[in-house]
Amino acid sequence: MKVSILTIGDEILNGTTLDTNSSFIAKNCVANGLEIIRALSVADNYKGIQDGMDICASEATIIFITGGLGPTKDDITKEAMARYFGVELSFREEIFSRIEAYFAKRGKKQVELNKKLAYLPANAEILVNERGTAQGMWMEHQDKVFISMPGVPHEMQHLLMDRALPKIKEKFQLATIHNQYIMCAGIGESAIYEKIEDIENALPQDIRLAYLPSLGTVKLRLTHIQNRGEASKEKEIIEFRDKIVERIAKYVYSYDEHKSLAQSIGELLIERKENLATAESCTGGYISHLLTSIPGSSAYFEGALIAYSYDIKELELGVQQATLMKEGAVSEACVIEMTKGLLSKMKTNYGISVSGIAGPGGGTPDKPVGTVWIAVGNKDKIVAKKFELTKQRDYNIKISAHTALNLLRNFILEQ
Amino acid sequence: MKVSILTIGDEILNGTTLDTNSSFIAKNCVANGLEIIRALSVADNYKGIQDGMDICASEATIIFITGGLGPTKDDITKEAMARYFGVELSFREEIFSRIEAYFAKRGKKQVELNKKLAYLPANAEILVNERGTAQGMWMEHQDKVFISMPGVPHEMQHLLMDRALPKIKEKFQLATIHNQYIMCAGIGESAIYEKIEDIENALPQDIRLAYLPSLGTVKLRLTHIQNRGEASKEKEIIEFRDKIVERIAKYVYSYDEHKSLAQSIGELLIERKENLATAESCTGGYISHLLTSIPGSSAYFEGALIAYSYDIKELELGVQQATLMKEGAVSEACVIEMTKGLLSKMKTNYGISVSGIAGPGGGTPDKPVGTVWIAVGNKDKIVAKKFELTKQRDYNIKISAHTALNLLRNFILEQ
Repeated sequence: MKVSILTIGDEILNGTTLDTNSSFIAKNCVANGLEIIRALSVADNYKGIQDGMDICASEATIIFITGGLGPTKDDITKEAMARYFGVELSFREEIFSRIEAYFAKRGKKQVELNKKLAYLPANAEILVNERGTAQGMWMEHQDKVFISMPGVPHEMQHLLMDRALPKIKEKFQLATIHNQYIMCAGIGESAIYEKIEDIENALPQDIRLAYLPSLGTVKLRLTHIQNRGEASKEKEIIEFRDKIVERIAKYVYSYDEHKSLAQSIGELLIERKENLATAESCTGGYISHLLTSIPGSSAYFEGALIAYSYDIKELELGVQQATLMKEGAVSEACVIEMTKGLLSKMKTNYGISVSGIAGPGGGTPDKPVGTVWIAVGNKDKIVAKKFELTKQRDYNIKISAHTALNLLRNFILEQ
Repeated sequence: MKVSILTIGDEILNGTTLDTNSSFIAKNCVANGLEIIRALSVADNYKGIQDGMDICASEATIIFITGGLGPTKDDITKEAMARYFGVELSFREEIFSRIEAYFAKRGKKQVELNKKLAYLPANAEILVNERGTAQGMWMEHQDKVFISMPGVPHEMQHLLMDRALPKIKEKFQLATIHNQYIMCAGIGESAIYEKIEDIENALPQDIRLAYLPSLGTVKLRLTHIQNRGEASKEKEIIEFRDKIVERIAKYVYSYDEHKSLAQSIGELLIERKENLATAESCTGGYISHLLTSIPGSSAYFEGALIAYSYDIKELELGVQQATLMKEGAVSEACVIEMTKGLLSKMKTNYGISVSGIAGPGGGTPDKPVGTVWIAVGNKDKIVAKKFELTKQRDYNIKISAHTALNLLRNFILEQ
């Protein structure tokens, strides 16, 4: 089943706003066995929209359209679609009363302008939007389905996941997609490939393996598309998953594709009723930020000491002046002393310390930019490791943070 | 001059990778007076690419193409373009020797596979890529210009800015674009609009004002497009800029569109030979991360105490137990005591403290999710302010951080 995506709006076309909607729609269509053939972005005018609908409808059966559904004069998507389908806009009482209720609840008066929100192309079936006032629309035309949704991301996501996709699955009797995920950290794509090459080569043709890397983690996805009438291969996929995991066990932190590394550490700590603190130099608080981005992290995250200067390392973490003088702040001895100081100060079960040269300045011949020392440990044992990263400051900060979290995860599991 | 953008690649079409290239190309074309009419994303196959070239070429004079230029079998952009133009691929000795030198410099051996990189469509003029091995191409065909660039963002950016745009300006004698920017923080789009509405309405037709908001900051852009033979209006734009700035001076932190708030604080502190530390609860290290993302920040950033728990607030920042008991951690008294404790501990000129309920849990009737207290100060004076933000954790963290930085900037300027 072929799908096109049409994005309407000058803001996205001109690059003022980054288009995240198309990739969200595409990802979720692909996960349901649909094939994306085109994603097109056009301007907010009649010609742009109608040409765009033509381009998207040619060869696709389902056409998603986002944007241009607001009440103001420059939002002309509904009018343009109606002209394309050769129908009128018709007033929908049910939308109007829902919008009245929506504004009443927020103590605002319904204004004349918003009346426009209740007019839809006559052939449109309403996809009820519970997160806003512009409704989604399902329009069938010449054996194709056009689905129009507002451009506001959290409204679009709700309409896609809760309204449009279920309706598409029902109408087109889609194949069932079985996915199994393996979330890895602390190892790169190609290193994984080397370890599991033979397993990958032995996969049956209809089970596919995808490597989906992002900063510091790699997501592996095993997929089987089960067409109507075919047997499920869910069991086989799980067997292959387990075979792969056997080879790379210490890098695997979850089977849940939505779980972050920081989240999985949080779960481990909650389970063990233990807690954590960090002492950060070159990562500058980024590890602490990743940990505290997780709702409920106050249950296991005590705090952090961002020791950017020598003074703070010495005074607050008790790093020896002699260590800083002889070995420097970017050294095994320094991160070990930072961890000891941190544990005694914060009184947590575990500590992470990082010190490195994020760049672009500050490198020396024996400690070039990208040199990073990381230590993780508890009161009984501290493990330190050196990494040689890149010349890119931002990348070094973020990779160091993910690497440190993964070292800690492995350390906790060994206790 | 009309422009289309064609993106080639399954990764982007399927939503695995977010397309940031199109918005980068669009933004920089618009800034040079070009008009974007379509941005299209297609799959890595001959039909997809050739149909895509047709769609993009219809009505546009300049067509940017990114992706599919690597040496592997699935990168077929060059072959597809050659077929579209009706030409052969021709071997370019100059590219081949440049690639050999590139690999030699990195101590790697040139492999047979990379030979493919030296074959370009016969009508292609080379746009030399100094950041990688896949070259950019400039191809003229039926009064249109097709510009092909690799999909790796930093290579594409280099080819666009240093090769393609200068060549376009020369060939098409483009108008000169004059922009003036006003970078604002701590104020929203609509509040700015209310303060400068009359100035905006009095702008001459050919000077346009755009509001470009991003998280915590708003960029204002005044633009005049000076066509060949017309007089420059640079002086007028600067006069309008100054008029606007007069009205919103305390929110304006820079005239440089690339400057972040954290960077502008860094420059202030370097100028004054002063320094800074932060004490963060709900922002969890995010302010520290923003500050330390700036190269050279160790010159003025001493460190941070991320006090996520009551204990750390009390033990490390000296917040009174009575304050925590009576007023709670999210209170004016608490952030003031945090700031005092921070300043005495870190011995810096300035301190920022934040305590709030980022959510989704932890709210109470009188302190709902989104309640945030921020204090900034020095040894003589501390100013605290309360904010009522949203229910979204991530948004609350990031907006609190930007708001805190802006409060500090204003505090420093008053000293």
